[in-house]
Amino acid sequence: MKRIAIQGKVGSFHDIAAHEYFKDEQLQLLCCSTFEEVFDSVRRDPTAIAMLAIENTIAGSLLHNYDLLRESEITVVGEQRLHIQHCICCLPDDDWDTVTEVHSHPVALMQCRSFLAQHSGIRAVEAEDTAGAAEEITLQKSHGCAAICSSSAARQYGMRILEDSIEDNKHNFTRFLVACHPQKADYLRPLEKADKASIVFSLPHEEGSLSKVLTILSFYDINLTKIQSLPVIGHEWEYLFYVDVTFNNLTRYRQAIDAITPLVKSIKILGEYKES
Amino acid sequence: MKRIAIQGKVGSFHDIAAHEYFKDEQLQLLCCSTFEEVFDSVRRDPTAIAMLAIENTIAGSLLHNYDLLRESEITVVGEQRLHIQHCICCLPDDDWDTVTEVHSHPVALMQCRSFLAQHSGIRAVEAEDTAGAAEEITLQKSHGCAAICSSSAARQYGMRILEDSIEDNKHNFTRFLVACHPQKADYLRPLEKADKASIVFSLPHEEGSLSKVLTILSFYDINLTKIQSLPVIGHEWEYLFYVDVTFNNLTRYRQAIDAITPLVKSIKILGEYKES
Repeated sequence: MKRIAIQGKVGSFHDIAAHEYFKDEQLQLLCCSTFEEVFDSVRRDPTAIAMLAIENTIAGSLLHNYDLLRESEITVVGEQRLHIQHCICCLPDDDWDTVTEVHSHPVALMQCRSFLAQHSGIRAVEAEDTAGAAEEITLQKSHGCAAICSSSAARQYGMRILEDSIEDNKHNFTRFLVACHPQKADYLRPLEKADKASIVFSLPHEEGSLSKVLTILSFYDINLTKIQSLPVIGHEWEYLFYVDVTFNNLTRYRQAIDAITPLVKSIKILGEYKES
Repeated sequence: MKRIAIQGKVGSFHDIAAHEYFKDEQLQLLCCSTFEEVFDSVRRDPTAIAMLAIENTIAGSLLHNYDLLRESEITVVGEQRLHIQHCICCLPDDDWDTVTEVHSHPVALMQCRSFLAQHSGIRAVEAEDTAGAAEEITLQKSHGCAAICSSSAARQYGMRILEDSIEDNKHNFTRFLVACHPQKADYLRPLEKADKASIVFSLPHEEGSLSKVLTILSFYDINLTKIQSLPVIGHEWEYLFYVDVTFNNLTRYRQAIDAITPLVKSIKILGEYKES
């Protein structure tokens, strides 16, 4: 039995992603209302595992989760991609003509913006979580309120699905990271099987410093799958670079990290894991 | 008199950014409810100028606006940075003990999340725009409803400011782009004064292709101020790179673009302008 800390409730996309990643395993969910709480859970209970959304094809990167990862001792041990499909659902005895409000997580509301624009009489109310909105409506018997969530959450809470697949863009994927206490990492992923790493580094403010680092990585046959620069909040002219790399040879990858370390101002390995 | 297309209403942050950029000039605002409408306005009326939020220190890049820019013929001619400060305001005869809902743009609600968590009895309702929420509450005399917007919008609509500077992170800056029809570009910014460019390119799926491009840029003394890779939606393994560069010499910059062009799969200059 694994204990998985997620942001959201049973039936949320974090829950679905956790069950996809740990297929056929018994999971106990630690449902948190914020990502800070997810990190706190793992800090307090080193046997717990965090499941964290990190980027979405429509909404982009979750910068706040990158911050939390960078500042924590928790290490990434895996990733999971999930196709995000939203439905709109309500109490079984409600219908389109009685619904006046739709509750969901702000990102889910954003991803259904065109759909909601076609139903302009309905107000969008923010909730902490997609599945949490469905649960709340069911518990409170909130007539006139609909939720946007996964169809599995709708079924879980006994709601009526008014329409499924209402997301504006059908290529809506979220990438989740699996992260845990470093002492537990080897148990969750054999390091020798790792072929991907997530790294964050900062650079001295010199022209060409990024191209030097990337050239060295390419000399060592390290492939970039993601790069994003972010200004360091409060420090103009300083940038953090979040980079995902893939590699065939773990030793070569380690040598590449050794080779770039003298050229960066700071560097942190967020985790080494198997590409999904 | 300049005609500026913005997303949002009078008093919105787009309005404030436009007045900062075009200081001491008479402006006529074309208030649009979506960014698509902003682009349509400039397409239909080549004398109009678009003002577009493109990134925020907390929320990250507005990927949708990057998409719209890439797909349009409109070119970037300037940038404006704005310190974002939110207030919470209500009708003059309302107060903390009567407010049950707060209306605002989803990003503004997100940027005040800690503040709102301390007032957990208040529901967050999404609106198209910060200033629009204030206007709507005033017009409808919506007792019990507060808005999150700039203090100038609150004053504009005669609202009572319950608390100012309620944003969670005080280093909350948004960068806006000024964009227009290419024929109007030279009139808005003398090209010879440009020292910054925004570029998007895609690369062949070969190891080291990004490091080659960045190395060439550094050989030509072109400095990177932003880089972000984005998967091309619907095409696994293909990436777009959005890059901002600065330079001292326009000719050298043009030569650098010529030098990287044979190595990229596609490239588009989103605009050349003066760094703010």
